[in-house]
Amino acid sequence: MTEHFWKTSISKVEPNKIVVRGYDLIQLIGRYSYTDLTYLLWRGELPSRSHSQMMNALLTACLEHSLNAPSVDAAIFVASSGVPLQTAVSAGVAAMGDLHGGAIEDSAKMLQEGVATNMPLHDTATSILTTWKSSRKRLPGYGHPTHTDDPRTKRLLEVADETKVSGRHVELALEIANLTDKIFSKHLILNVDGCIAAIASDMGFDWRLGKGFFIVSRTPGLIAHVYEQMYFDKPYKAPHWNEIEYSGPAERKVPEP
Amino acid sequence: MTEHFWKTSISKVEPNKIVVRGYDLIQLIGRYSYTDLTYLLWRGELPSRSHSQMMNALLTACLEHSLNAPSVDAAIFVASSGVPLQTAVSAGVAAMGDLHGGAIEDSAKMLQEGVATNMPLHDTATSILTTWKSSRKRLPGYGHPTHTDDPRTKRLLEVADETKVSGRHVELALEIANLTDKIFSKHLILNVDGCIAAIASDMGFDWRLGKGFFIVSRTPGLIAHVYEQMYFDKPYKAPHWNEIEYSGPAERKVPEP
Amino acid sequence: MTEHFWKTSISKVEPNKIVVRGYDLIQLIGRYSYTDLTYLLWRGELPSRSHSQMMNALLTACLEHSLNAPSVDAAIFVASSGVPLQTAVSAGVAAMGDLHGGAIEDSAKMLQEGVATNMPLHDTATSILTTWKSSRKRLPGYGHPTHTDDPRTKRLLEVADETKVSGRHVELALEIANLTDKIFSKHLILNVDGCIAAIASDMGFDWRLGKGFFIVSRTPGLIAHVYEQMYFDKPYKAPHWNEIEYSGPAERKVPEP
Amino acid sequence: MTEHFWKTSISKVEPNKIVVRGYDLIQLIGRYSYTDLTYLLWRGELPSRSHSQMMNALLTACLEHSLNAPSVDAAIFVASSGVPLQTAVSAGVAAMGDLHGGAIEDSAKMLQEGVATNMPLHDTATSILTTWKSSRKRLPGYGHPTHTDDPRTKRLLEVADETKVSGRHVELALEIANLTDKIFSKHLILNVDGCIAAIASDMGFDWRLGKGFFIVSRTPGLIAHVYEQMYFDKPYKAPHWNEIEYSGPAERKVPEP
Repeated sequence: MTEHFWKTSISKVEPNKIVVRGYDLIQLIGRYSYTDLTYLLWRGELPSRSHSQMMNALLTACLEHSLNAPSVDAAIFVASSGVPLQTAVSAGVAAMGDLHGGAIEDSAKMLQEGVATNMPLHDTATSILTTWKSSRKRLPGYGHPTHTDDPRTKRLLEVADETKVSGRHVELALEIANLTDKIFSKHLILNVDGCIAAIASDMGFDWRLGKGFFIVSRTPGLIAHVYEQMYFDKPYKAPHWNEIEYSGPAERKVPEP
Repeated sequence: MTEHFWKTSISKVEPNKIVVRGYDLIQLIGRYSYTDLTYLLWRGELPSRSHSQMMNALLTACLEHSLNAPSVDAAIFVASSGVPLQTAVSAGVAAMGDLHGGAIEDSAKMLQEGVATNMPLHDTATSILTTWKSSRKRLPGYGHPTHTDDPRTKRLLEVADETKVSGRHVELALEIANLTDKIFSKHLILNVDGCIAAIASDMGFDWRLGKGFFIVSRTPGLIAHVYEQMYFDKPYKAPHWNEIEYSGPAERKVPEP
Repeated sequence: MTEHFWKTSISKVEPNKIVVRGYDLIQLIGRYSYTDLTYLLWRGELPSRSHSQMMNALLTACLEHSLNAPSVDAAIFVASSGVPLQTAVSAGVAAMGDLHGGAIEDSAKMLQEGVATNMPLHDTATSILTTWKSSRKRLPGYGHPTHTDDPRTKRLLEVADETKVSGRHVELALEIANLTDKIFSKHLILNVDGCIAAIASDMGFDWRLGKGFFIVSRTPGLIAHVYEQMYFDKPYKAPHWNEIEYSGPAERKVPEP
Repeated sequence: MTEHFWKTSISKVEPNKIVVRGYDLIQLIGRYSYTDLTYLLWRGELPSRSHSQMMNALLTACLEHSLNAPSVDAAIFVASSGVPLQTAVSAGVAAMGDLHGGAIEDSAKMLQEGVATNMPLHDTATSILTTWKSSRKRLPGYGHPTHTDDPRTKRLLEVADETKVSGRHVELALEIANLTDKIFSKHLILNVDGCIAAIASDMGFDWRLGKGFFIVSRTPGLIAHVYEQMYFDKPYKAPHWNEIEYSGPAERKVPEP
């Protein structure tokens, strides 16, 4: 164990004192919002007024998606098994993988690398789409299985205009959507993940914090679902045995060992 | 599987529409804060202005406690092992057990049951302390291993007075602290967990949501710590073999099976 | 951090050497089975031949229960979200709560405390059933939602007789089942959890290790289910939006903030 | 939700009957070992006698590594926080990432792809090393931070020879180790992860099950460590505040919001 085994730049604790990124926590309570302090924790600085407004919109845009979300489904099965609330919430957070919220990270990376080339956005968008098309992977932040025109995107873009945080990353994100018709031969909408990615990039967030937005957004809802399952629903949630299709080998004789 | 296997009162999804507790999510974005919507998810209603202010203070009061928190320590060990960000955050949430944030729930239960007796607060406080003393369990929400006078408590009580949400539960919580000297023969301070419990109880929250406050409060910090470990620290965090004391049996010969 | 912050009696690592409970791991590999070493880790000693046989039966008795298990359901939802295999397995383990495998622990505690009274087993069984009846809680280790006569119980009892490990705890467990008709006015079978609890207690296991049996038993199956979901099923498992019943408030106008 | 929402090839449950991969579970208990049934769950078939022996060696080779393992460290911090045993074990499993056990999967993939080329092993080994050298990534399954000559590797290779399961993948794995001196200009030993990968590949296991070996191997030890922490150590494990180095900004005045 080296001498700096326990080291962090995030906060400091002493008896009767807590310092967060250089600020006394006590002086922040009641003056800055939860959202502002999330920004402080992730960026190291308090947000401007417009960044504070935008941050609230980003963290509420993907607040809830009912049981049409594997994270919530996982959490309620765990919650039904006789565990403390936080155990079930934890399982829900674990489910926020590359296919469930992860598009924010992937899309932000793609947009930040695209803007960093300093090429005309039309060329960058064309290059990105061509690359992704040949990779045969899903373009992160575009298309949605339920929403044909993601209403959260439009609203977020309005707030981004009002707060004047919209910049090159949003422009690139929209240009990519425009060009999908031509290059993919079908229109792919900019979804809420891609829109959060673009706006957070314009605000200067590192793409590697992308999943953080989704986790914070969904955690209060996870807690609500787990609470509902634990106290207002039946325990031991599972499909009945006769609802389960068995597709394995037919019954057979056990061989002698 | 019964016909209502998938059922929830929290939100509804349809193509291009998301309804949360009866409200169109799109109309909430940019108008209500993240904290307000957390309140909506947990209570079913939007907060009043004073409840909104108080909620922000409650969710920021125990924002961070550096590495002096098993949840953060667990998360950074996981983060060092080559996993996605959310996996490590999930492990941190799992650590928010009865001894780490759980006092909010236990304390709120104790205070809500106490106030519900409708007895004079002095009598209720005496009865509670006598019961806990004989149980030999730790009184939830009182005392702190690091802080001799938890500065977060004082600040939260100020905000609770300013917003006029303080009521009988806060009074009972303070009366209990006053009486610890007499009944426990030593002073136990009201700590941040007990103070959140008292104020949230005065706001009408079910004690069974107590851990929710701690989880939401600490999640942005967990994300910051995991991000720091993943990208700005060395991988595979573990004590060196020669720092580990082995207290098991001395080396011995393996017997014939 | 005290000088013994990192301390364990379980194993020791030095360059090119690993010692487990006093034995050189290299000398165990290929001579003792996985099950024997699980016994060593939990008890501190290698098992006798009969304990080794019984241990194998205990760890295979509740091997699998298809998707009729919240732990497996939770795991496959997580597995569908684009995460590494171990993340989904981890969520499954988290679901092995008091209502899902936890009966082994609760039942073993009940049986060990019962046998420790040294009273005639009939009296102890009567006392236990009377106490649980008045508590209105579920009697741990008895009854099953699917199996009217748990076939695993009968088989485990056969192996326990063959290996001669059966003793007072098994006797008490069976006496309790016998008396349920009289005291609960309905027959409750001894289920696989209660049977594992009784046999493990006769082998000398601490009841606080009860969940360990269930976790080890189910982990290979969890891995198989997660592998099946990840590589042979569709990603993003979730009920379709129109399969979800919304039971919250009707749509309503968002008030002015 | 489609009609086959709940579907699996692994097992089937009916009242008083459990079928695993076509076999009646009751007929397996007491006749086949835990390790044999793990093989059945993962491969769909029961193992031959030699595969059964080898499987036991594979699952015990990396049984324990004391606290010199992030998974165990994560688990004991969680265990100290007042949670059920399985919650802490779950956090340990979550930590078995790409840098901690994950080399089995990566190494098996590399070896299986190498053998599948049907080229002379010397050429394949050269090609693999050249590719990895230029990628600047860590060669999976080679080298170890603590063990200069991993004793588990030698022992596993002995068992693989005795049981006659050794084949082309083991040969390739050893050839790669031989060539590291020449191509990497330093000797990298074949470690236990790489050795398990090679032998499991010779037994016909899909590389995508690689992490399964590590998870099953380490779970009994995780349980032992969690049990030790919960019942034989102090609660709320965390470094003392004055042991933590704060590397963030100096204390500064909170600006007006």
